[in-house]
Amino acid sequence: MTDEPVDVIVSEVGPRDGLQNVKQTMPTEAKIRWITALAQAGLREIEVGSFVPPKLLPQMADAEEVVRAASKLPGLDVLALAPNFKGAERAIAAGVTTVSMPVSASRAHSMANLRMTPEDAVDQVCKVRQLLDSLPEKRIGLEVGISTAFGCSLEGMVSEDWVMELAGMLAEAGAESIGLSDTAGYANPAQVKRMFTQLKRELGDKAGAAHFHNTMGQGLANVVAALEVGVTTFDSSQGGLGGCPYAPGASGNIVTEDLVFLLEAMGLRTGINIERLIAARAILAGGLPGEKLYGHVPDAGLPKGFQYASATHEALTS
Amino acid sequence: MTDEPVDVIVSEVGPRDGLQNVKQTMPTEAKIRWITALAQAGLREIEVGSFVPPKLLPQMADAEEVVRAASKLPGLDVLALAPNFKGAERAIAAGVTTVSMPVSASRAHSMANLRMTPEDAVDQVCKVRQLLDSLPEKRIGLEVGISTAFGCSLEGMVSEDWVMELAGMLAEAGAESIGLSDTAGYANPAQVKRMFTQLKRELGDKAGAAHFHNTMGQGLANVVAALEVGVTTFDSSQGGLGGCPYAPGASGNIVTEDLVFLLEAMGLRTGINIERLIAARAILAGGLPGEKLYGHVPDAGLPKGFQYASATHEALTS
Repeated sequence: MTDEPVDVIVSEVGPRDGLQNVKQTMPTEAKIRWITALAQAGLREIEVGSFVPPKLLPQMADAEEVVRAASKLPGLDVLALAPNFKGAERAIAAGVTTVSMPVSASRAHSMANLRMTPEDAVDQVCKVRQLLDSLPEKRIGLEVGISTAFGCSLEGMVSEDWVMELAGMLAEAGAESIGLSDTAGYANPAQVKRMFTQLKRELGDKAGAAHFHNTMGQGLANVVAALEVGVTTFDSSQGGLGGCPYAPGASGNIVTEDLVFLLEAMGLRTGINIERLIAARAILAGGLPGEKLYGHVPDAGLPKGFQYASATHEALTS
Repeated sequence: MTDEPVDVIVSEVGPRDGLQNVKQTMPTEAKIRWITALAQAGLREIEVGSFVPPKLLPQMADAEEVVRAASKLPGLDVLALAPNFKGAERAIAAGVTTVSMPVSASRAHSMANLRMTPEDAVDQVCKVRQLLDSLPEKRIGLEVGISTAFGCSLEGMVSEDWVMELAGMLAEAGAESIGLSDTAGYANPAQVKRMFTQLKRELGDKAGAAHFHNTMGQGLANVVAALEVGVTTFDSSQGGLGGCPYAPGASGNIVTEDLVFLLEAMGLRTGINIERLIAARAILAGGLPGEKLYGHVPDAGLPKGFQYASATHEALTS
């Protein structure tokens, strides 16, 4: 971890979105070693767990312990997912730097995933805002990702106007950053450009991260589209961990290794060392024996003559 | 095969670039059934084989027979690769509609792949042009793809100025269409935009197809970048067949199924039916027992509520 400036923030969600979608439970000690290795590779934002009832997601039962350990890593923004007020209370008590709350645009997905309507989920965000404002201590961030923003495997098409209305409601409720999540992997680059452009128009600086899944193989194509319209934070998962229950055989989130390569090759600084990032896969693999890890760059290795964006920038400015 | 207008041409190279990179030899009869099924799915351009010495590539020993069969398919542009004048003579005699010649920008790759310098390869193109001009019969096209245009796994970086100079020499030599090929899979979207913009500036209407490999997982990201600067023909391979000898574990060409999905989802008409395209995989799989086929869309299936671009265009214009 250095203070080198970055052009794009890569936000690792593997310890949350990845691990909650695999059947095995990664041992707590391995999770902490993995997160530490990711931070040492240069990742500045990691979503380390989810504060859901352990009965529902035993893979996340150690969220408190993982957050406590991660919050000792210097300079790391430690995010945790909280599906509701109760989860947010636990996340804050454990010591997160940012609470991340999911709100589904699709009503069917909202009921299936959160057991409440989108409007009730906005209310939960509002309550968490009030709680955070009442805290005397250190500043804690509040981010929301709008799930199924690009379509839903239960409902099909999701109204873009409704997604924007919801984004406005969330800003009103006090979320500081509102991103768009392609939960089902349905997004296409034309839609991504259109919707993030509209999001910026609605929210200005509160327009947040892009969260893409690679279910249809379109993840990095959608990143290129989002970059074109000024998105600067991208969620991804080491090894593309996860998989979507509605898409058998498909991989999960976009692969961090391939995303960082894309950005650095384009001359966009991430602050991340790809070799160290790839080395961290061994810890993940050791903690989840037999689990399939994805990624082209880890398989192929870096190109002959590859240069990091920082090298390019240094060359340009020296 | 209908006369429905298309916005983007998807040029299938699996029967050539794919099959020449697998160890097994697909039986001729299966190749012909596969090519027929691809044409019936709506593909209008297929590179059906390569006219190289059968001793070097036994997988392509039946190129004459395959070309003869493919040239009976109505409306299909039948391409074959010819590495030199002798190969082009064979391709023309067999009945191709277009001769495709590779010219490497990297000298090391040119020597390894074609056993001649780039300048000698340009001379071969010039000789083929003269031969084509001397033929009294039907019009046969002449296309060139510049290999290793975005970098080389032997040489590393390849000079972009040299690639443009080579493109100019090829236009002078009489190639009607000159494309850029990312043989090593090294290209990034920023480079793709820069180089295709420059190619159009140099060659105008003779600027040709983009040929991307997915070695680093960047294939469709590069397609989005190329679309932004007006590229309208993309090579791809069913099942992402191929693999690169220099990148163990990496997949080969970009996957036709995922590419067609990308384009149609963006509202760009390809004339291709994705369900029929996916059905053609069975013939390919049957002809290459045990060979791994790639593709996210074939695994995940089309999204709920998916609409083809043609439906969008019809809705817009009705």
